[in-house]
Amino acid sequence: MIRIKNALVMPMTNGIEITNGEVWTDGSKIAFVGKPTAEQLSTAVFDREIDADGGLVMPSFKNAHTHSAMTFLRSYADDLPLQEWLFNKIFPMEAKLTGEYIYYLSKLAILEYLTSGVTASFDMYFEPEYYVKANIESGFRTVMCGSISDDKSNVDRLDGFMQRFNGIHPLIQYRLGFHAEYTASYELLEGMAELAKKYHQGVSTHNSETEKEVCDCIKKYGKTPTELFDSLGLFEFGGSCFHCVHLSDNDMSIFRDRGLYAVTCPGSNAKLGSGIAPIVKLHDSGIKLGIGTDGPSSNNCLDMFREMFLVTALQKLVFKDAAACPAEWVLEAATVGSAHAMGLDDCDVLAEGKQADLIIIDLNQPNMQPLNSVANNLVYSGSKQNVALTMCAGKVLYERGEFFIGADPREIYAKANEIIRSMAD
Amino acid sequence: MIRIKNALVMPMTNGIEITNGEVWTDGSKIAFVGKPTAEQLSTAVFDREIDADGGLVMPSFKNAHTHSAMTFLRSYADDLPLQEWLFNKIFPMEAKLTGEYIYYLSKLAILEYLTSGVTASFDMYFEPEYYVKANIESGFRTVMCGSISDDKSNVDRLDGFMQRFNGIHPLIQYRLGFHAEYTASYELLEGMAELAKKYHQGVSTHNSETEKEVCDCIKKYGKTPTELFDSLGLFEFGGSCFHCVHLSDNDMSIFRDRGLYAVTCPGSNAKLGSGIAPIVKLHDSGIKLGIGTDGPSSNNCLDMFREMFLVTALQKLVFKDAAACPAEWVLEAATVGSAHAMGLDDCDVLAEGKQADLIIIDLNQPNMQPLNSVANNLVYSGSKQNVALTMCAGKVLYERGEFFIGADPREIYAKANEIIRSMAD
Repeated sequence: MIRIKNALVMPMTNGIEITNGEVWTDGSKIAFVGKPTAEQLSTAVFDREIDADGGLVMPSFKNAHTHSAMTFLRSYADDLPLQEWLFNKIFPMEAKLTGEYIYYLSKLAILEYLTSGVTASFDMYFEPEYYVKANIESGFRTVMCGSISDDKSNVDRLDGFMQRFNGIHPLIQYRLGFHAEYTASYELLEGMAELAKKYHQGVSTHNSETEKEVCDCIKKYGKTPTELFDSLGLFEFGGSCFHCVHLSDNDMSIFRDRGLYAVTCPGSNAKLGSGIAPIVKLHDSGIKLGIGTDGPSSNNCLDMFREMFLVTALQKLVFKDAAACPAEWVLEAATVGSAHAMGLDDCDVLAEGKQADLIIIDLNQPNMQPLNSVANNLVYSGSKQNVALTMCAGKVLYERGEFFIGADPREIYAKANEIIRSMAD
Repeated sequence: MIRIKNALVMPMTNGIEITNGEVWTDGSKIAFVGKPTAEQLSTAVFDREIDADGGLVMPSFKNAHTHSAMTFLRSYADDLPLQEWLFNKIFPMEAKLTGEYIYYLSKLAILEYLTSGVTASFDMYFEPEYYVKANIESGFRTVMCGSISDDKSNVDRLDGFMQRFNGIHPLIQYRLGFHAEYTASYELLEGMAELAKKYHQGVSTHNSETEKEVCDCIKKYGKTPTELFDSLGLFEFGGSCFHCVHLSDNDMSIFRDRGLYAVTCPGSNAKLGSGIAPIVKLHDSGIKLGIGTDGPSSNNCLDMFREMFLVTALQKLVFKDAAACPAEWVLEAATVGSAHAMGLDDCDVLAEGKQADLIIIDLNQPNMQPLNSVANNLVYSGSKQNVALTMCAGKVLYERGEFFIGADPREIYAKANEIIRSMAD
């Protein structure tokens, strides 16, 4: 067992309530949360005691939308118009990717997630076997999201992935998903609906990221992407939609009625000039929220702290109201909401029996002082610098700047540079 | 002499050009930048050699608008409407401040600046003698900006401060400034113009932060704040304006003609819902730019990396254009522009004879890899976590998480908490 003591604990089982206490883990699970009695302490046997030094123990962040392996395109094509970025820069480079490249580039992303207190990603990319290998070796949790499109893969292959990867390892899951309406034929969407019925599972996809995407869909089908997907039965068992920047009132009704998760990616939406998702309206409509970084080619970093600040700051800007989108919503979305959006309900909060996916936040840093409100400090002044420890499934993967993922970070950096150089040639 | 070797160097003397090289410092100054010859190396005597480990040496960031001592109000009154925040929360607490409190609260801010690679602040607050003490003791550079208003202080007192604090210490300067139009009588503004003439110096002030401020000024004077100030001769010798969110075309002409600096504070403007400054338009009009964090009660952190991303990301959002406001503009504004905005021209770039105000950025971190573009990495994925070393006037004040400011950070944290508790009672 591992004992984390001398801590503040925010289990997220009761909003952002924080108490003094301890968290104990046993194997991959949480064994205890609270103030132990003298008797409990006298009978427990600990392999390690971690002094949190007054820091905050809380559920780790979950990254509910990303394309991890795109690390190689970080800072490769910034400050370009969206279409030029995508078609002249991103797509040609992605065409050169190999499975081995994806393996290393995913490890680079995992390193970065850990520095930001993220322990799971809802990842949409190609070559899942190499991505799976990178995650298992690193001890990182992932839920892969189907990414099929007309050009890449198809419904049968997705069905094969579902069978092949679910159950392969406790840290790995695969869920139904496709890339986006604008890269999918009507037949592909119909096939997705069949799969949803077959697996009784929600379907996830990019949805309404740009105005153009929505306008083109309306032109083509007379429906918004959300209306189209719903009309085909894609959301019969729920699902998660990524971005959700340009939603109509009717779209939001569908989200609410179907129990869909809206996963917001404010960093990417801002950097690509796509717009600001209607978070306040979504929340007030009773729609469930998650937060994603999107891929590192469009964000460009994988930092949940930056995303959290952006989620609320951009709402305050839109509504010209400093009271819009309080910190509690944001913390809920970055932890519990994101976990649920990717189908993870066993690592969402700190409670006995849940998976030990947690972080320790160092409060003895100038940006976290004074302690007027620890929750607000997290959202409004928190930073990766405050992540003292990141634990996934009971294993410490990152602690005070050091990584424990069974690989040398420098070798991964060197490999990433080698890959992009060889591609650029 | 201190030798920083095994580095990439971005002196900011030629845009964001980066070369392999070294930086040597001697006392408070930079003694050498470039690739030393064997002869130079054989004759130099170093007190310390710092291996930058392939990291980037660049000019430190300068925070061109802040109210440092407001650290005590961090996370004290978030998610409130602006007027309630200011009049019911901020002003009553500020009324309880003492000089001793300001001394400790300023030290807390200095700690935070150092973690973000900031070595100088253009600070507007009360009780300058206590603030000066905190800066000198810490080895931190500050330019105090006059903050007079009808309620607090007056032109004569400001004149006294100018004489008392300029020349008191190499790290300390005091410049002409007043709080804002909406807290100043016409007579106060006339007095400021007199002082500008007396000192042949620019005048700095909050300007056009909110729509209300501009509308009220037009109602009262038939002029925007910028037009009013200019008509009184306040900008005869230039100056810096903080926020600059709501500027008219004529305001921008005045900025350009007078050589005024527009200091943007995007984090604070977003969090308070004040709006987005027209950075692209300002830049394209030839107006010089600086960046400030504003005070920690409205931001809530003092992090130049967050500000840099916001400067460009918000422009991309406004223009729906991923190409808007490239990284180079932002780096220029955060270093050279901000230094000049506060009247510092001896610590703006890395060049022989300049003050040794510099930082080392750790590139061996996942968010800075691969090295497709180090400059873009800084702006789009950089974070405080990457600041390996912060040097001010040739002295290392922060290195790999440790502070060297002659005080125990924990004591400062404890003091800050004690202060806010005593005030809340």
